[in-house]
Amino acid sequence: MNYSLYAGGKRLRPLLVFCACQAVGGHADAAAPVAAALEMIHTYSLIHDDLPAMDDDDLRRGRPTCHKAFDEATAILAGDAMNTYAFQAILEGVSNPALAVAVARELAAGAGVDGMVGGQMADLESEGAQSDADRLRYIHEHKTGALITAAVVCGGIVGGASPQTLERLRGFGRQVGLAFQVIDDILDETATAEQLGKSPGKDRDAGKMTYPRVMGLHKARQYAQTLVDGALAELRDLEQADGLRTIADYFLSRTH
Amino acid sequence: MNYSLYAGGKRLRPLLVFCACQAVGGHADAAAPVAAALEMIHTYSLIHDDLPAMDDDDLRRGRPTCHKAFDEATAILAGDAMNTYAFQAILEGVSNPALAVAVARELAAGAGVDGMVGGQMADLESEGAQSDADRLRYIHEHKTGALITAAVVCGGIVGGASPQTLERLRGFGRQVGLAFQVIDDILDETATAEQLGKSPGKDRDAGKMTYPRVMGLHKARQYAQTLVDGALAELRDLEQADGLRTIADYFLSRTH
Repeated sequence: MNYSLYAGGKRLRPLLVFCACQAVGGHADAAAPVAAALEMIHTYSLIHDDLPAMDDDDLRRGRPTCHKAFDEATAILAGDAMNTYAFQAILEGVSNPALAVAVARELAAGAGVDGMVGGQMADLESEGAQSDADRLRYIHEHKTGALITAAVVCGGIVGGASPQTLERLRGFGRQVGLAFQVIDDILDETATAEQLGKSPGKDRDAGKMTYPRVMGLHKARQYAQTLVDGALAELRDLEQADGLRTIADYFLSRTH
Repeated sequence: MNYSLYAGGKRLRPLLVFCACQAVGGHADAAAPVAAALEMIHTYSLIHDDLPAMDDDDLRRGRPTCHKAFDEATAILAGDAMNTYAFQAILEGVSNPALAVAVARELAAGAGVDGMVGGQMADLESEGAQSDADRLRYIHEHKTGALITAAVVCGGIVGGASPQTLERLRGFGRQVGLAFQVIDDILDETATAEQLGKSPGKDRDAGKMTYPRVMGLHKARQYAQTLVDGALAELRDLEQADGLRTIADYFLSRTH
């Protein structure tokens, strides 16, 4: 668990938790266990994704994947324990029971069969299938988008956001989450291995659907811009949302 | 998820939830989502245990294991989603937030790195190692005992038990959970395949430590009796605990 959790990475999801909490006037201390939980769910999903039966990857964040450094059984159990520990971190770390329940429910919905894992399953089932924009959108909204959205909404909940503000944050998370994936697909087509820190063209070579394949590179870039613009519009009334705005702008700056 | 969850089985853990809730005067309706969650955690652990990288089993509950009926990736994801869904079921189904948090914390502690998964890891690490009663006890208290204890305690929490009564239930669960495993080991040595519904002697042949191997068959039977007597003593002051008493007696009746 420590090997994979402390391997580095962008820490995007915890950053979104902290920035969303800040955007609604909450205190960073309250957001810390929630931020940790989001990174644990993300890391467990990477450990299991890298297994031979899934993507069969040898390297992750520049180090051997968990099952390469240890063995497959250890990697399966490390992922399982971290999935459970994410909920434990929230339930033990968020002192207000009503907020703890709301945060943990949001995380479960984003991480489980209605969210991330559902998207991974749809992705598995679509391999070799005909490219289709609706199906692609479903996969990405669930596989990566749902957990990114959950990070933003969970940060808002623990920061004490009103229901109206939470819906704004949800809109921001949904659009920024989809933009993240569109941009990932673009980089997979255009970036060098050096820029990416991993081999580009892997999704393309695996015959996976990507946005540039479905709509072309130019339209994919326009689509990412439209999504980020829509995400930023949701933050209109939030004066302390500079952190979230910076993240959205950073996403877009990666496209070129 | 449905394939494995509806394959049958003894439903021991949900039964313990309902009987513990009843023992403290709680209502079965309140216990239902908690009972479902316990069976989901148990079932996800079976799906992952059966994977080729773990115990590599082809049959479970008389049907092909999940990865045989589908494939390994599907089995990994089904287990992952069910782990998360167990917490979702509690957080959505237990209406009092303080009770929902208490139940979900107890389940996380029993299921995760400090409980079931920790015990599975210790079990993996002990394969081929020297038999040792302390190590064996650690493995069994965690691998199977922790979730059985969590079932009893979670049923008590959702039934509204006092802290004193919860500690009684915890003592019952701990002893009955260990007895369950001692008896499982005895049956693995003595029962026929027909009685067991699976091949006996599998743990013995795999060189795993078992109670009969460590202390002999006769002493193992005595130990199971002592544990069940101790468990029953914890229920002394609970007038509605007949359900729990019946389960403890049933455990013991399986030894011969």
